[in-house]
Amino acid sequence: MMKKKAGSRFPASRFPFPISHFHIVRKEIVGISSKKHSETTTSKGAIFMEQIFDFDLLIIGSGTGGYVAAIRASQLGLKTAVVEKDKPGGVCLNWGCIPSKSLIHQAETYGSIHGLEKMGLKVDVSGFDYCKVYKKSRKTSETLSRGITYLLNKNNIEFIKGEAKIVRNHEIIVNGEKKITGKNIIVATGSRAREIPSFPIDEDTVLSSTGALMMQELPETMLILGAGAIGVEFAHIFNAFGVKIHLVEMLDQILPLEDAETAAVLNREFRKRKIKIYTGTKASSMEKKDDVIEVVLEAKDGKQKIVEVEKILVAVGRTPNSENLGLENVGIKTDRGFIPVGDYYKTVVPEIFAVGDVIESSQLAHVASKEGEIAVEYMAGLKPESRIDPDTIPGAVYCEPQVGSFGPTESKLQETEVKYEKFVFPYRGAGKSVAIEKPAGLAKVLVNPDTHEILGASVVGAEATEIIHELLLAKSAKLLPRDIAEMIHAHPTLSEVNMELMRGIEGWAIHV
Amino acid sequence: MMKKKAGSRFPASRFPFPISHFHIVRKEIVGISSKKHSETTTSKGAIFMEQIFDFDLLIIGSGTGGYVAAIRASQLGLKTAVVEKDKPGGVCLNWGCIPSKSLIHQAETYGSIHGLEKMGLKVDVSGFDYCKVYKKSRKTSETLSRGITYLLNKNNIEFIKGEAKIVRNHEIIVNGEKKITGKNIIVATGSRAREIPSFPIDEDTVLSSTGALMMQELPETMLILGAGAIGVEFAHIFNAFGVKIHLVEMLDQILPLEDAETAAVLNREFRKRKIKIYTGTKASSMEKKDDVIEVVLEAKDGKQKIVEVEKILVAVGRTPNSENLGLENVGIKTDRGFIPVGDYYKTVVPEIFAVGDVIESSQLAHVASKEGEIAVEYMAGLKPESRIDPDTIPGAVYCEPQVGSFGPTESKLQETEVKYEKFVFPYRGAGKSVAIEKPAGLAKVLVNPDTHEILGASVVGAEATEIIHELLLAKSAKLLPRDIAEMIHAHPTLSEVNMELMRGIEGWAIHV
Repeated sequence: MMKKKAGSRFPASRFPFPISHFHIVRKEIVGISSKKHSETTTSKGAIFMEQIFDFDLLIIGSGTGGYVAAIRASQLGLKTAVVEKDKPGGVCLNWGCIPSKSLIHQAETYGSIHGLEKMGLKVDVSGFDYCKVYKKSRKTSETLSRGITYLLNKNNIEFIKGEAKIVRNHEIIVNGEKKITGKNIIVATGSRAREIPSFPIDEDTVLSSTGALMMQELPETMLILGAGAIGVEFAHIFNAFGVKIHLVEMLDQILPLEDAETAAVLNREFRKRKIKIYTGTKASSMEKKDDVIEVVLEAKDGKQKIVEVEKILVAVGRTPNSENLGLENVGIKTDRGFIPVGDYYKTVVPEIFAVGDVIESSQLAHVASKEGEIAVEYMAGLKPESRIDPDTIPGAVYCEPQVGSFGPTESKLQETEVKYEKFVFPYRGAGKSVAIEKPAGLAKVLVNPDTHEILGASVVGAEATEIIHELLLAKSAKLLPRDIAEMIHAHPTLSEVNMELMRGIEGWAIHV
Repeated sequence: MMKKKAGSRFPASRFPFPISHFHIVRKEIVGISSKKHSETTTSKGAIFMEQIFDFDLLIIGSGTGGYVAAIRASQLGLKTAVVEKDKPGGVCLNWGCIPSKSLIHQAETYGSIHGLEKMGLKVDVSGFDYCKVYKKSRKTSETLSRGITYLLNKNNIEFIKGEAKIVRNHEIIVNGEKKITGKNIIVATGSRAREIPSFPIDEDTVLSSTGALMMQELPETMLILGAGAIGVEFAHIFNAFGVKIHLVEMLDQILPLEDAETAAVLNREFRKRKIKIYTGTKASSMEKKDDVIEVVLEAKDGKQKIVEVEKILVAVGRTPNSENLGLENVGIKTDRGFIPVGDYYKTVVPEIFAVGDVIESSQLAHVASKEGEIAVEYMAGLKPESRIDPDTIPGAVYCEPQVGSFGPTESKLQETEVKYEKFVFPYRGAGKSVAIEKPAGLAKVLVNPDTHEILGASVVGAEATEIIHELLLAKSAKLLPRDIAEMIHAHPTLSEVNMELMRGIEGWAIHV
């Protein structure tokens, strides 16, 4: 996997590294270090020593945290290597966001059967072959994973296949044999599905999200444990293809992190599509019986219900991949598995950074990328923000209707006793939503009642994951609702929902 | 059609108006006029006279110019009436934007056949009934037109069915019989399809856009004259349903007002779908022969070609509806049919305003609405901008791929010798476009090379009509590319194209 294109600064033939590549030399004159040779204080405390590293930056993991950081680092002149034990692109690209979006797209294509029948066409579904759907999703991931390889090559980033372990501050060992040194290290090893003891994942009857993505034929029934973003996306996908879905959530609403009104819209749409939803419910145990699994559900009031399904999907969160990284060799102690970081995503070891799902921040691909960018820009001497402002992180759920949101929810503001004003605009007020037969949805904005500063927003409806960005730009650039309210929006678009929303909070929505 | 709901300030029973409602009284004390009775200087020049008008504002036409102005006026306390000779909502809602979007949506549903077949389904199109498609588009328009009636009622706006003619400065006559007076008048009568002598529209074989929308069965072949937004949208719709399309454009590119690179992407996609495109070509004459029409096409080099089609759609622009409005009674002279206006869309008569397609500005629904809002806010004593900045008007074309744009095109900047820098980002660089199988497209931004102020942008690709708004907000709020470049965008979304575009112009696009 160490394909190199011409012009790479680090030819593959230099591997495995001779140990002599890691040496310390006395520096005669303190000056500006070359791009290739970095200057530092050694771990032994000697000053004016220069260590010559193989790379300016070593990144462990090539997911959206790692590969984006690598490209940014290369742009900023850092000689960079990425160590990856699996496929370029990590979970998001190979077993997460990307293949699931392919499945969702195909599920929505499948959902057009009803529309076609209304036009007088006849659709015979007897030949439906889910394996073809699966294969297309794999092809999408492969295409994009090849794209990452291309980008890494183009940016002269060394891609090293193998499992990395940190040996000491500036040194890792790959597959227990190749030692590589770097001035800085970024740990971007991501996360894996969290397991719960009573539902052990075997990827056969009890699946993780990876297992669900790799499924090549559809069960008739599925119980999904957890109605966060991952759970509802799979509920949407498999329901669209005709699987009977039981969606179980321990908290009081599906998408528990989203605004209650937003979640209620999705709940209503899911119920219309016959998805069985159990909120405030715990799945307490399971028992395999011949071809089915009996799952015991327990409501808050203690009432039990037994549901029989063919498959169970466990989607109750993700666990950081922080084991077997040699963190103990450099004195990094994890906290519930997460690597603690400070400003610029620096660990207790100043030369070692950690970004993405392996640290305790929103476990989202785009957050990982941004964290990686911040760490790298800091290393390169730029002045990025030291941390992401959590209120500027967009959340996106790609079910139907979609959900896009940022900032605190209304109930969060109530809990923390922050004063706010709100306005809610219904999607059906935008003609486009009616024309495309997707009138279900709403947008909600929460503002400071005195200044009208935007605190947060939530959109549920067609293309919500796209139109949220206009609202987010207003928030992140500290614009006011009137900046969107007074801007001309193309008619008919769904973005008019944003305009009306902001007009509404200013007191003059037109289409409501 | 004069349905009123309880609480309306102007009961239907008051019609027809007795002439005594229009009278002049001497005002004893100069003071603040009541909301109902407006103060003015009479046309005879007498001062300190108060004219009592039936309405503060009379609006002629209930299209997107008229009805939005009416609602805004009512919000601002103006007693308002709208006179409409046809259906509430005007062309956009009844025979334009809205029903065409319904057809486009259904065309795209029809287009999913291919995707279904790839999953192993069999689709029998023999029962396809276009009339059902047509009927759904009509239902959409009816739903939304009823929505306008609801909004007018809710806002206590008098809806008067009939043809209005201006009699004198503050007075109109409806259907030649009912005289109504208003302190201010807005002419928002819109436009109709422009005709060309050699292709007289009969709405049978030679159609306007209205005729094309009202068509209840599909021809086998159609020639579309004009490849502006309307022409290409119909080409997209009918091609998707299997009609063989010849698209003829006199200028050198389809979508002649759009950026050349953008138009080239659409051109390529259209050709892939077997739409025959003739740019730089004039349709010089037609001859009906039995069941077909022979159309003579003439290229720039004089070469002729004869194309046989069943129907012709003439989409070569729109003509303002400025006739029979009594403009001559108040001294308003039109210019090539357009009503000349100054600041705040005021005509030469200070109490008469004109907005929308009847004036010479971009003939777009959202422009008409904004113009109406500006006029009304001005009347109400607010301080709106006096004119729309043309560079902040979004253009939107709802074909596939979609087009969204604003500001000058690159060739316009070259013509006017404005210095610029540009960056172009390909859609396929955003993983979402690949996952939803719509990788064709690009985004382009043009900036001032010194300040990086955004001059214009053009996006062609999936959901371009939505994602353009984030870019437009940056432009209209005078943000800089880095404001979008540094903002976290949800992954995977098409809006990441915006982020990469702005990173690109700043010199650090990641996925390219």
